[in-house]
Amino acid sequence: MVDREPAVIEFWFDFSSPYGYFASHRIEQIGAVAGREVVWRPFLIGAVFKETGSKPLVNIPLKGQYARHDWERLARWYDVPWCYPDPFPIATAAAARAFYWLDADDADRAKAFARACLLTYFGEGRNIADAAVLAGIAAGLGIAEDALLAALADEEVKSRLKDEVTLAMEKGVFGSPFVFVDDEPFWGADRLDMVAAWLASGGW
Amino acid sequence: MVDREPAVIEFWFDFSSPYGYFASHRIEQIGAVAGREVVWRPFLIGAVFKETGSKPLVNIPLKGQYARHDWERLARWYDVPWCYPDPFPIATAAAARAFYWLDADDADRAKAFARACLLTYFGEGRNIADAAVLAGIAAGLGIAEDALLAALADEEVKSRLKDEVTLAMEKGVFGSPFVFVDDEPFWGADRLDMVAAWLASGGW
Repeated sequence: MVDREPAVIEFWFDFSSPYGYFASHRIEQIGAVAGREVVWRPFLIGAVFKETGSKPLVNIPLKGQYARHDWERLARWYDVPWCYPDPFPIATAAAARAFYWLDADDADRAKAFARACLLTYFGEGRNIADAAVLAGIAAGLGIAEDALLAALADEEVKSRLKDEVTLAMEKGVFGSPFVFVDDEPFWGADRLDMVAAWLASGGW
Repeated sequence: MVDREPAVIEFWFDFSSPYGYFASHRIEQIGAVAGREVVWRPFLIGAVFKETGSKPLVNIPLKGQYARHDWERLARWYDVPWCYPDPFPIATAAAARAFYWLDADDADRAKAFARACLLTYFGEGRNIADAAVLAGIAAGLGIAEDALLAALADEEVKSRLKDEVTLAMEKGVFGSPFVFVDDEPFWGADRLDMVAAWLASGGW
């Protein structure tokens, strides 16, 4: 009998997604309980929205106002820092490129960077579309700022992100966060309890 | 000290909404635990979609396929009958008018009718946009078929539904199901656990 590692949990999110931010606080604990590694996969939701004809939540009448209220309520519910960032939403290609550049060498370091980015944007309201802000976050984690800035323009890194976005769409990822357990898809921070139940029971 | 009834829970849904169907199986129990009456309020989601620029889930690329998969999964999760109805979605003005006609006299009878309609459509796949199907459902509940058919064309009943749809939009209802506890809005069958937590704690 071959001893196999259990399959990973895929955690897809956009760095400008409040629901991705909230989910990022819970997903590792869900993985730990199930004894599964969580693989973080930032993608660009703007590219997906072009495909699906969607637009940012805050630009949709009624739904936008609800979402703003809901984010404040969820931040209190999860007890995590929250401010409504301005500008919002933002382009997140730079943050995602930096992530994949780090991820190639050290997945845990990339996750720490991702968490710091999300907290900087949604907890402090500082704009992580700004390369200088990203470099500052990297410096705080002991990552050389100039190496990170160079990575943002690196063709290989850019191509890696492009491939991940293509893969996301091929897998049917249309929103953030999006979780896969084996091949089972779960959309939304609302579904993390269901993800945990699926992992615990093996599905239904 | 004046003895006051606790405020009702408002349960807004469209008769063609799978998530409304799933929520309809849980909402009364949530109300019972909290000691609050649940007031059912069918509305026409098509009218709201005109306002928000949304369209039926199944017509949205990627999201539509996910939704179909999700409904089957939720039906197994909640252990309720499910078939993907054809046609779907449907116009629900007739079912909603019948509901409000019954509701004017007897809220419990209107709820029983609503439950039977949802089960007929999502459990058996029979088209509740058809007045004859609605009349048959009514007959099964001891309601005179001819009176129900007359109510569908009654100007007062039509006007009542129109008023409810206007009220839904004024209250910011943009999807189905939509629940209000006091003035707190909750969108989606996914949020029923949060509704229960809000009721138990008095909010946060």
